[in-house]
Amino acid sequence: MFEVQLGKYAFNFGLLVVDMQNGFVSKGGSYELLGMNTEEYRKIIPKTKELIDFCRANLIPVFYTEAIREPSGIDLLTRVHRLLPVTREERLKVPICVRGTWDAKTIDEIEPADSDHVVIKRRDSAFQDTELRVWLQSEGINTLIICGVDTSICVETSLRDAFNIGYDVILISDATASGISKHYETTLERVRDYYGLVMTVERFFRIVNSLKKVMAGEVRVEDISKDVMTDFLKEFNLLDIQERTE
Amino acid sequence: MFEVQLGKYAFNFGLLVVDMQNGFVSKGGSYELLGMNTEEYRKIIPKTKELIDFCRANLIPVFYTEAIREPSGIDLLTRVHRLLPVTREERLKVPICVRGTWDAKTIDEIEPADSDHVVIKRRDSAFQDTELRVWLQSEGINTLIICGVDTSICVETSLRDAFNIGYDVILISDATASGISKHYETTLERVRDYYGLVMTVERFFRIVNSLKKVMAGEVRVEDISKDVMTDFLKEFNLLDIQERTE
Amino acid sequence: MFEVQLGKYAFNFGLLVVDMQNGFVSKGGSYELLGMNTEEYRKIIPKTKELIDFCRANLIPVFYTEAIREPSGIDLLTRVHRLLPVTREERLKVPICVRGTWDAKTIDEIEPADSDHVVIKRRDSAFQDTELRVWLQSEGINTLIICGVDTSICVETSLRDAFNIGYDVILISDATASGISKHYETTLERVRDYYGLVMTVERFFRIVNSLKKVMAGEVRVEDISKDVMTDFLKEFNLLDIQERTE
Amino acid sequence: MFEVQLGKYAFNFGLLVVDMQNGFVSKGGSYELLGMNTEEYRKIIPKTKELIDFCRANLIPVFYTEAIREPSGIDLLTRVHRLLPVTREERLKVPICVRGTWDAKTIDEIEPADSDHVVIKRRDSAFQDTELRVWLQSEGINTLIICGVDTSICVETSLRDAFNIGYDVILISDATASGISKHYETTLERVRDYYGLVMTVERFFRIVNSLKKVMAGEVRVEDISKDVMTDFLKEFNLLDIQERTE
Repeated sequence: MFEVQLGKYAFNFGLLVVDMQNGFVSKGGSYELLGMNTEEYRKIIPKTKELIDFCRANLIPVFYTEAIREPSGIDLLTRVHRLLPVTREERLKVPICVRGTWDAKTIDEIEPADSDHVVIKRRDSAFQDTELRVWLQSEGINTLIICGVDTSICVETSLRDAFNIGYDVILISDATASGISKHYETTLERVRDYYGLVMTVERFFRIVNSLKKVMAGEVRVEDISKDVMTDFLKEFNLLDIQERTE
Repeated sequence: MFEVQLGKYAFNFGLLVVDMQNGFVSKGGSYELLGMNTEEYRKIIPKTKELIDFCRANLIPVFYTEAIREPSGIDLLTRVHRLLPVTREERLKVPICVRGTWDAKTIDEIEPADSDHVVIKRRDSAFQDTELRVWLQSEGINTLIICGVDTSICVETSLRDAFNIGYDVILISDATASGISKHYETTLERVRDYYGLVMTVERFFRIVNSLKKVMAGEVRVEDISKDVMTDFLKEFNLLDIQERTE
Repeated sequence: MFEVQLGKYAFNFGLLVVDMQNGFVSKGGSYELLGMNTEEYRKIIPKTKELIDFCRANLIPVFYTEAIREPSGIDLLTRVHRLLPVTREERLKVPICVRGTWDAKTIDEIEPADSDHVVIKRRDSAFQDTELRVWLQSEGINTLIICGVDTSICVETSLRDAFNIGYDVILISDATASGISKHYETTLERVRDYYGLVMTVERFFRIVNSLKKVMAGEVRVEDISKDVMTDFLKEFNLLDIQERTE
Repeated sequence: MFEVQLGKYAFNFGLLVVDMQNGFVSKGGSYELLGMNTEEYRKIIPKTKELIDFCRANLIPVFYTEAIREPSGIDLLTRVHRLLPVTREERLKVPICVRGTWDAKTIDEIEPADSDHVVIKRRDSAFQDTELRVWLQSEGINTLIICGVDTSICVETSLRDAFNIGYDVILISDATASGISKHYETTLERVRDYYGLVMTVERFFRIVNSLKKVMAGEVRVEDISKDVMTDFLKEFNLLDIQERTE
């Protein structure tokens, strides 16, 4: 675990990697077969790999979600819905991410390690009808670092749920992608506006490295200058938690 | 109830009115006191009232959500979160929508009738930790007409949850509003792209009036021309449900 | 699916088989290694098999739960709880039902068929943090036939959840077992008193066979004598649904 | 809040008072009108009052549940279920605990104080579709002291849910009651066997008073003799948490 005490606040980090499966991301995956724009997804692979490796190295637990369809089709949206946008059509023409297939597997480049955790999900949110919350509770995690695809669908719904359930959320801008660039931009904007922090992989590394100094006792929280704190709050558009009285 | 059978599909409508409370919408409400842009919210009052009256007249059950804070402050976001965007600050400086106050009440113009249902919520989604799902189940509702504020926060989160739980969703474009017009636009776009239908109050009325003819036996489903169906699917960017093979 | 219309009520059956895994049930399984009384569990295997075969033959969808522990131990109760009864001790001394092991597998005698559905669960209830509800929704199931082990722990908690979520529940008395006979008896009594029906496999078969006559049009609901209905309600201690006005 | 650190374990207590409403408990309430045995419920009033007063005095947050029915009947079980035991019949003949009536109010003897919290529930469990979990999270509570009625229905279902969600649970034996003494006994037995601790009000007071000495620094955890710990674990049939390696 990666837990650090900052004044009266304890932060305990976990990384959530959303749906980086062959079916969505890979050349030859079902999304590409359906003619969807998956190139953006592939562009984030190197940064996502860096992020995952860094988290493992720093004992930040890593949670993958995999959107899995049963061969029986019991979890198809068309079994429940009557009105569905055409973008949900792919579920019909090409079987995607079916249990046991290559399509359903997380891409090789960031294959889950034995120490990572894999959550099977059936709907957009990583929290809906999954054990993710049980596992985060076991690890004492209260702050979720979020990456993966698609930024404005599964990632955003998972992030909204995480926020409303009570997790602090950090979205990693260069380790998440959307097939539609406009949707990518608006999700980032909204997260900044209403839910949490948005930053690059590199910025996240710097924060973790700073926190490690606190954990190691090299830096004392009370020695961090007021200016540093003010700049941080301003950079990420945050409330001043020191001023909170509640 | 308003239930209509279209071929093998039954539609049962319910109206969800999100957070049209004095605190968010009214002049003198806590949002205005905080300097937020609430004018857009007030602009939709007439259309929202029309929509609610129409639903009541057509026996479509009406569900209001009210975001209520306890005087004790037990439900404040700051009790749980450590990292909060400044837009969530209002919860601190001005007490908003506190139980028992004028601020917390739904605005007079669309006051809930005895036959309507009011759901108290604590977080953004109308479904999180509320009895809404129990009530929709009681009424057999499978299609939610959604209006209210703020389009891209509580309305969108509720709509995403509704969709993922299994409801078909229709967002009424001129009976929902956001303080930030760009967020309003992107929510509408996303709903069209991924979740359901977007239409005006007037368009919704025309659909219901057409369905009433089916219910009354004046129009038979098998007599509806293929062109009419095709135009409908195209207008709302929908999958052709006739083609679904299951 | 097995769906039958009785007057204004439609019944759609699903079978839920709880935790019939080697770890709990089999000789040489982890429960036996821990010195628990597992003989009662094995006694119900033949009847449970009969029940499952019958359901498959009659197109009643079959859902298995499997309580699975991750090798990492992330889902152990001791990761979350501080006060645990000694009966929960087995989780510590002998690893039970760990993913990928023989111990975790459903017993051979009633191995899930390709057409069946398997739900992985982490806590006692079949509904907590699982996709069971999504799947039941897909199949339109509103009445759950429940069997498996242990009657008063996972079976009873799942049954209470099913009832409170809105499913009608039928517990099959000779296809469920408890290590402690007194707990077995009290669960059956409570189900009868508060939640639903309790009957033997044989009685369930007779009911399904009667319903099949209704489905086939051989018996008309309106021809069923009042006495037959009255006897049924009395046998199972049920409210007279004909008298309901709501 | 009442929070105490014992070695590496922190305990944070909350009291849950289940459904002590006129409709269930009082003479002239709807349950009595229906001919149910409510005398046992009234017998626990003095002890329950003692318990609540004690918790308030010791800053243990107090949560009441109130089972509330809407006048519209939208939450009646008969709206969803087709097969209901006759004990659920009362919902039909006499309107019970309808919002805004005397019947629905918590009994005068233990009226909620301004500092207490009231959760409206629609089904048996205090957790199903309520904000209880949000509130417990706000208070940081991880150990629930549970009292109220009926022991084997709403109290037991709430307690099972609490346990499975991850709270440690303590059931107060002389501040909970069932209309049927046998069900009362079996619930207590099961809680001891599978879920948590069972003790009297008086025993609970003694524990809290001991913990207060730890909180005040009068007793150091490391000075508590091994025998005292062993006796405690034995008294309540608990796993030895010191031996846990995980």
